Amino acid sequence: MKKVGVAILGLGVVGGGTYKMLTEHREFYKKNHSIDIVVESVLERNTERAISLGVEKSVIAESIEDICNNSDVDIVVEVMGGIEPAKTFVLAALNAGKSVVTSNKELFCKFWHELEKVAKLNGCGLFYEATCVGGVPVIRTLLDNLQGNKITSIMGIINGTTNYILTKMTDCGVSYNEVLKEAQSLGYAEADPTADVEGYDAVYKLSILSSLSFHTKVPFTKIYREGITDIDSDDLRYGKQLGYILKLLAIGKNTDSGIEVRVHPAFIKSTHPLAGVNDSYNAVYITGDCVENIMLYGRGAGAMPTASAIVGDVIYCATHSDFNYSTFNNTENADPTTNFIADFSGAYYMRLKAQDKAGVLSKVTSVLSKHNISVAQVIQESGRADGTVPIMLVTHETYENDIWKAVNEINSDGGFATVSAVIRVCG
Amino acid sequence: MKKVGVAILGLGVVGGGTYKMLTEHREFYKKNHSIDIVVESVLERNTERAISLGVEKSVIAESIEDICNNSDVDIVVEVMGGIEPAKTFVLAALNAGKSVVTSNKELFCKFWHELEKVAKLNGCGLFYEATCVGGVPVIRTLLDNLQGNKITSIMGIINGTTNYILTKMTDCGVSYNEVLKEAQSLGYAEADPTADVEGYDAVYKLSILSSLSFHTKVPFTKIYREGITDIDSDDLRYGKQLGYILKLLAIGKNTDSGIEVRVHPAFIKSTHPLAGVNDSYNAVYITGDCVENIMLYGRGAGAMPTASAIVGDVIYCATHSDFNYSTFNNTENADPTTNFIADFSGAYYMRLKAQDKAGVLSKVTSVLSKHNISVAQVIQESGRADGTVPIMLVTHETYENDIWKAVNEINSDGGFATVSAVIRVCG
Repeated sequence: MKKVGVAILGLGVVGGGTYKMLTEHREFYKKNHSIDIVVESVLERNTERAISLGVEKSVIAESIEDICNNSDVDIVVEVMGGIEPAKTFVLAALNAGKSVVTSNKELFCKFWHELEKVAKLNGCGLFYEATCVGGVPVIRTLLDNLQGNKITSIMGIINGTTNYILTKMTDCGVSYNEVLKEAQSLGYAEADPTADVEGYDAVYKLSILSSLSFHTKVPFTKIYREGITDIDSDDLRYGKQLGYILKLLAIGKNTDSGIEVRVHPAFIKSTHPLAGVNDSYNAVYITGDCVENIMLYGRGAGAMPTASAIVGDVIYCATHSDFNYSTFNNTENADPTTNFIADFSGAYYMRLKAQDKAGVLSKVTSVLSKHNISVAQVIQESGRADGTVPIMLVTHETYENDIWKAVNEINSDGGFATVSAVIRVCG
Repeated sequence: MKKVGVAILGLGVVGGGTYKMLTEHREFYKKNHSIDIVVESVLERNTERAISLGVEKSVIAESIEDICNNSDVDIVVEVMGGIEPAKTFVLAALNAGKSVVTSNKELFCKFWHELEKVAKLNGCGLFYEATCVGGVPVIRTLLDNLQGNKITSIMGIINGTTNYILTKMTDCGVSYNEVLKEAQSLGYAEADPTADVEGYDAVYKLSILSSLSFHTKVPFTKIYREGITDIDSDDLRYGKQLGYILKLLAIGKNTDSGIEVRVHPAFIKSTHPLAGVNDSYNAVYITGDCVENIMLYGRGAGAMPTASAIVGDVIYCATHSDFNYSTFNNTENADPTTNFIADFSGAYYMRLKAQDKAGVLSKVTSVLSKHNISVAQVIQESGRADGTVPIMLVTHETYENDIWKAVNEINSDGGFATVSAVIRVCG
């Protein structure tokens, strides 16, 4: 039986899950895949943690060199996170002829071109299913199922923390700060939640997914980003009344005029398949010119779902002899011929605090109309004690630039109304 | 640039879609996959149809021998359907050293073992993503993403025709026969709808999917099958009141006591992700010991979505040099050590027509209780003019054998009540 040696760099949440999955399923893989996968080495500074996971002392490596020099190691699993020392370690492993499986979205997104170049040079495999959306099989679907399609759009809920927070805010009407605290105490949000709540995590994933979808490098720096920290639960309530659910969406579109990539809170119709994706579940909704729409749904994070993606790559790597690389020109920067669109088009939700006087709605709509914006839905509530009245509206399809011009004009025009919130409406 | 020659056997709906996709995307594949895929040959008796699709006369083969002897053909796409002559043609192609891509679920399900044996012997690839659930990437997900998991359950809406019919019956309250007629006139159901509405199509797919999921051959003959022709729209309405939606479900389970495989109408909770899969959309909901739950959703049939799966396999075949085969013992019959469970367990919905007399509900529940069945939900409507009263109930988890014993006892016991419908409740 073919023996396959694995080294794991980092025994954190995902590394621990991977160790557990590989060791507990060893007989299962022997029986069903005819390979004997052995964890030959782990690199983890916290020896106590390693031992508490059942790792034998003899398996704990002193350094990355130990692993690179270990001829029993065929595949190196990198689950450390962060850029350094992960990058140095992965390059060392590839240069030593080891194939690499990684879940490190930041490293992969920023240095994919460099890692792939070295992998190619050394004839090694480079696998990254676990970088995007945990156990949801989106990378291989793009590479090996939908590759015959012209993908026109990819739209995803690809961050579990923010989806948990927004689901709770929507269902319970509580504030962002309140839910964040609860999520932190449950371990669903980090002590420093910036990477999740400000959309960086989703941006890294979207960079990888849209590069694969559109066959051209989409660097993360080209992606418009806006987080969920300013979301007011009032807007979730008004959105519901208008038939929408708020999600942090990662959106990639490929149109005749260019590529549009963005991560921001967005309202989607409550009947859209993504609207039912709640709590820490994730999903990616892909449109191709032949397949029409497909949706892949599941756990986007967590120890075992992410381990499932890593081990899937390990077994694939162990049972295939030819490795494929990017089919596009995988450079650090975008191809100079690729046009990126910044002036998105779409519908917009707007909440205004207007003076409770006759004709104020007409004033608002006349400013909008000056900027070629027409209104599709309106809710005007009864006047408040402070002499203002809340107006919520959804526009017909328009352009981002026109929306902001209109907002500025309303906000600076004598105070008949103030725009308190603007949220994009997608799908 | 690598040139890849394709022959298409059969230019029906799916064959026509495949021809269109390959020819219209030829430049796209050259640019993005660095392969020049050329349709070198088609086998289609209806020459007029071939020509109407834009096929040049010189490309139309006279016989399967023409294709087998054509050294420009590397991959044969079989989209004829049925057993013969498809089987003879596929075997001839494999024996001539051509790799085969097929969408023919009946052929594949019944002769997988034989086709694979010949493919292996000749070192050819045998690809079958399109046999199951059209454009939904379920085969490759099982093979190359979830293969590290012990899959415990697979539950799917894998037939578009029946899902269209049940969705319409649920939404509009109309009868099976009425919707069937409409579906036939729209082309969603065949003139002879037996294969779809009696569940045979779903059985073939479930045989393939559960064999892959559970790493053992699950012959279609082992699958319990029940169609949707007897479904009464009253039960869809009562089910809704109780919080359930009716679907034709294909279910495979792998438990410590054995494998359970079945296709039948079933109620699922209206909050289950599968409950929102409507019209001709399909979805597969898979549970693995590490990945937890994932769902793959999309178009399960139709010319272009199925072509998407076929062309995905064609490109995969053209860009990989090593072909993998079943990891289990792929014989015609089940492995004698595999235990198949016939006495399913689960909850059951029951509709009774009872005499409108005091104590009748108590009589019903006492028969149930004699067979270890307890009741979780009941609706009793007001009495009808004919002196009967409809009682709908959902049981707690129980066994199939116990349910039928109880039903027989009620139906034969002096006529205080008759069981008019029994529907399994799953998920």
